[in-house]
Parts: sequence; structure tokens; C-alpha cells
Amino acid sequence: MPNPTDATDSTDTETNPEASTTDADEFTVTPYAVSGEVDYEKLLERFGATSLTDDQLDRFPDHPMIRRRTFYAGRDVNEYLEAAESDDPHAIVTGRGPSGPMHLGHVLSLYLARRFQRETGATVYVPLSDDEKYLAKDQSFASIGGHTRDNLRDVLAVGFDPENTRIVIDTADADVIYPIAVRLANYLTPATVEAIYGQQDTVGLQFYPAVQATHLLLPQLVAGRQPTLVPIAVDQDPHVRVCRDVAAKEALPVEKPGALLGRFLPSLEGPGKMSSSGDAPSIELTDDPETVAATVNEHAYTGGRATLEEHREKGGDPSVDIPFQYLRFCFEDDDEALELLRCEVI
Amino acid sequence: MPNPTDATDSTDTETNPEASTTDADEFTVTPYAVSGEVDYEKLLERFGATSLTDDQLDRFPDHPMIRRRTFYAGRDVNEYLEAAESDDPHAIVTGRGPSGPMHLGHVLSLYLARRFQRETGATVYVPLSDDEKYLAKDQSFASIGGHTRDNLRDVLAVGFDPENTRIVIDTADADVIYPIAVRLANYLTPATVEAIYGQQDTVGLQFYPAVQATHLLLPQLVAGRQPTLVPIAVDQDPHVRVCRDVAAKEALPVEKPGALLGRFLPSLEGPGKMSSSGDAPSIELTDDPETVAATVNEHAYTGGRATLEEHREKGGDPSVDIPFQYLRFCFEDDDEALELLRCEVI
Repeated sequence: MPNPTDATDSTDTETNPEASTTDADEFTVTPYAVSGEVDYEKLLERFGATSLTDDQLDRFPDHPMIRRRTFYAGRDVNEYLEAAESDDPHAIVTGRGPSGPMHLGHVLSLYLARRFQRETGATVYVPLSDDEKYLAKDQSFASIGGHTRDNLRDVLAVGFDPENTRIVIDTADADVIYPIAVRLANYLTPATVEAIYGQQDTVGLQFYPAVQATHLLLPQLVAGRQPTLVPIAVDQDPHVRVCRDVAAKEALPVEKPGALLGRFLPSLEGPGKMSSSGDAPSIELTDDPETVAATVNEHAYTGGRATLEEHREKGGDPSVDIPFQYLRFCFEDDDEALELLRCEVI
Repeated sequence: MPNPTDATDSTDTETNPEASTTDADEFTVTPYAVSGEVDYEKLLERFGATSLTDDQLDRFPDHPMIRRRTFYAGRDVNEYLEAAESDDPHAIVTGRGPSGPMHLGHVLSLYLARRFQRETGATVYVPLSDDEKYLAKDQSFASIGGHTRDNLRDVLAVGFDPENTRIVIDTADADVIYPIAVRLANYLTPATVEAIYGQQDTVGLQFYPAVQATHLLLPQLVAGRQPTLVPIAVDQDPHVRVCRDVAAKEALPVEKPGALLGRFLPSLEGPGKMSSSGDAPSIELTDDPETVAATVNEHAYTGGRATLEEHREKGGDPSVDIPFQYLRFCFEDDDEALELLRCEVI
């Protein structure tokens, strides 16, 4: 439990120590672990975020992940929308932890950011947290460096506007990152970090949340106060909450960053978060079309009924049929075409 | 107490958790606090360092602070001496925490390093830990930045060989420092930091020992394995011990740095460590001769007897007479001249 004299006593705090712990054996969602069947609405209560309103959905640039509520909740979304509508400066931060090859689940928020950039001119920052992955994963610095270079190619392939996009690699750009992180670290207690992330094994992992907070404030520190939106899978929300807490301490001239929280792309093998641990099959961004087809054919969970008889009787269940879900998440933009596909599954 | 599964269970550990705690109300010596009357020999037992032998004294370049055992103890001193005698690469690291103006007590190890550099060609690294001072002192980043620039001038005025000296400022040179510190931080547990430095209020201070360890390994990381000697006041020895612990984990291709441990220059007002807190009078490096004379005349503790009568009867006590002690520490090189002065005090 946090010390009541520490950061968590801030009246402005959003780092509720209960937020990321398991709720009566139901499900766990933290930046380092997701288990159980996630109740996305209950998660908002835990985290203190709010569902997107219909009005907000209409005001975002049109995208299937917005329209279909894959990104379904947020924090301070209106400030971002107002700046985007008024042609005022506004920014998006969405990054990557380079611990292995990037797969489809990693790229969804980048696709969304690209869409927003093209529609309203958002500046996009893409931090690659090689420091965190070195500290959190049992890999050498050289191995993480290799993944960083490979992931960088995948990020570039997304097609951002080079004039309006900045890619940051924590160790390579430490001259920018570290001095800011030190300033933020002065407002972040070990007790707060433990309350949000659990006990950390090394002082590197204790310090890292200050680096993460730096990422989310970079657009404002480079170009002045402006609404910043962070589109991320909902399990990464604690990072945003830490940053908002620290930003509120007025260590630096910034506003709190907002968040746009997304559901997990389901695993090829069925409901649950797509794994990047390497043992579960997944579609990597560098796979060629034949490999993608073979992976889907071999591994994708389809139909959703217990037996062939039940499937023949009731038809498939689109809510768990993985090929349909992947198309619905992002890869079939046309709602009518998607509805036809849904009917085919049933 | 540290967790026995943490760093302190290393068979190679030097981070004895008892080392920096108070010993039966006698005295306390840690990097952040010195109090009581310091027993320098007992301190070596606590810290696990060893007194310099007569042979070692003879092998160092001649300097009053060596000859008179102001620097009186060390770790792995022979390795350094052998490299210096063989013209093999060898280095010295001695830095400065820029929290205010530099005074005489801060410059002694720099003078020693300059002497060694001139005599045997040691490469000298001078890290300025602006990050630590921002985190540890109640000052703005801008204020610490001002002291850093001022201290830098004082360091340059020492007269190091520009070709063979590197000055490092933690935040300005973060592109070099941070990636190494991350690698070392992976081998440093919160329990180890707490055992050595006590509980830290922020994750910045938790992380800083990894930055300090980086300083001491820089010569080897830049120019390959080589004996590195760290001349410091004895209260800073815990930093060396942390670095030696981490270096032993083989995260990087380095040898453990050695240490040369010095006594404290006494305060102008009498026995004890010279204070830099600002409220005690001290001689700043930028003071002109008139100011130095006035400060000494006004504040220096002299004589050492309780009353004028006792002084007239027994004479002064050179062991506590501050003008004599300052001359003895460093500022009167000639032993015969010093002996004449000693006789004058008595």
C-alpha cells in the first residue's frame, strides 16, 4: 500500500492503487499482465476513464476502430477534439516496446494515429522503449537493439507524414529523454510506482515510469502546451494515469495528456489478448500474404460452436469467430461488406 | 534489511548493509550525512577498505596529501600503481555534485588527480552530477544548471591536460550516460539501494546509484579494461562499493574500480567535515585573496585551547588549529616549512 504522505495523497491523483489489481478472481489488467475474461465496462470503473459518447464518436475522423468502438473510452477527449476541429496544435503519442517482431495487435493504434494525422494534421510521436524492454524482458541489450531496428522499419511502413512525425528511441535519444525524466522522477515516489505496477525487481524498472511519462509530454515540451491524445490498449492506461498525476504537479509547463482506450485484438486461437510471447501463433507485420493465409488457415479459431453438429444447427458465432473479428476490428472498412460477411458466418 | 535473494547475497558483495549505519551513537558517515567525531580507522573496518601501506605511499606520485596520509586508505590500489608504473592505460574518476559554489574541500581530490595525471599520464574523468543534485537538493533545475556552469569553470581552472581529460555533465551527456546506467540498473535492486543509502523519497534517487556507477566505469567503457582509481572523501565510498558490486555482475566488460579514500578537510569553525550547506563560513574557489584572508581572520578556529590562559600556558594545539591544518592538508608542500609553522603554533 502506498504511503499516505506520498504522491497518492494528491487531491488530483488518478493513480488509484486498487485500479490494476484482480477483482474477486474475475480478471487482471495491468501493463505487465492480462488474464481472465476482460469486462471492458467494469475496467473503466476501475481505471476511472469514461466511455466515448455518440457525439465524440461523430467528431473523430471516421475510422472503423472508432465507428465500431474498438477504441471505446477515454480521458480528456473533448480537449483534443476541439483543438483538431479548430486547427489548433494537437498531438498523438503511440509507441512500441521493441521486445520482438511486431504483429497485428501492435499496429492498430499506429493505424489510427495515421488516420488522425491525415485528417486533422495531428503531430504524431512514436516512442520506442528499448530501455524498458531490456529491463523487463530476459534479453540482451543487443537483442533488444535488433528488435528496435526491425520494429522501426515496421513503424516507418505505416506511412506517417515525415514532416509531422517524430520517432524517439529511448537510449538513442537519451539526450532529450533523460533530462526530462529526471525532472518528472522528482515527483514520483517508489510507493506510487509500487501501487500501480507492483513491486519492481530493479531500480531501472522503478525509474522507467518517469521515462514513459516523458514520452507522453514530449509534444508539449517540444512545441508548447497542446492537447495530446494517447491511443492505447486499455492495459496500458496506468502509464497514462502516472503521467497525468506527474503532469498535475506542475514540474513542467504542460497539460495532462488525454487517452483513447482500445480493446485487445483477440488471439488467433480465440478470445483473450493477442500474445507476443512467441509461443502463440500470430500474424507478424513482415509476413507475406501466403504466410498470413497459412497462419490463419492453420491456427485461427472459427465458428465458435462446441461441435460440428451444433455449428450446422446454429451457424457460427461471429462474436468469437477470429477471421470475422479481425475484419471487424480494422481490416474491412466497409460496414455493408462486413455485414454480408457476418451473415455468411452465421 | 535487504532481501537475501537480492544483490546482497552475491558472494562478491561489498555492499554490507551495516556499513553506513550509526555504530552505537558514535558517528555516522554516509554520502548524505556525516555526524559525530569520525574514527577513520574504524570506518575502514565498517566499509571493508584497507589502510595504505608505506610501500604504496612510496609508489604514488609525491604529493602532500599522500605523504601526510590525508588520503589514507583504498581498494585495489596495487592494480592502479602497477599500470601507472608500467605506462599501461590507467584512469582516475573524481567528480563534483553542483549544488552550490565549490569550496576548498571540494577541490582536494581534483588537485590530487591533476598531480597523478602530470606524473604518470592518467586519464582523468570529471563527472558533474547535476541530476543527483536536482533530485537531492531543494533547488530548481535552472538553479542547479547555474551551479553546474560555475563549477565547470572551477574544474577547468584546476589545470588538467585537455587532451587527456573528459568532463561529463549527466543531463547534457545523457546520450552517453543513460544507456549505460540502464544496463547497470538491471543489476541493482531497490533493496540494495535502500541498504546502502537508506530509504529514498523518489524513483529518481533510487535510480541515481546506477548513474554514479556509470561514472566510475566510463574510462573502461570508452578505452577498454584498465585500472581506475577513484580519489574521494571517505563518506563517498558507498558509491564505489555499489559500482564494484555491479561491475562484478559482468553486465559490461570492466574491472571493478579502485578507490583512494580521504579524510575530510575540517570546517573553518573547527573539527568536523567542511559544510557546503551555505550557513557555515567557507573559502570558495572564486574568492579573491583579500576575501580569503578576511574569512580566515574572522572565522578560522585557532589555538585549540579553552581559554587564553591555557593557550599561553600550553601553546596552541596544531591538531585542531585550522590555519595549520589547511596548510598541512595540501597548501604547504614543504615538510620543513610546515614543521616550522607547527612549532610556531605550539
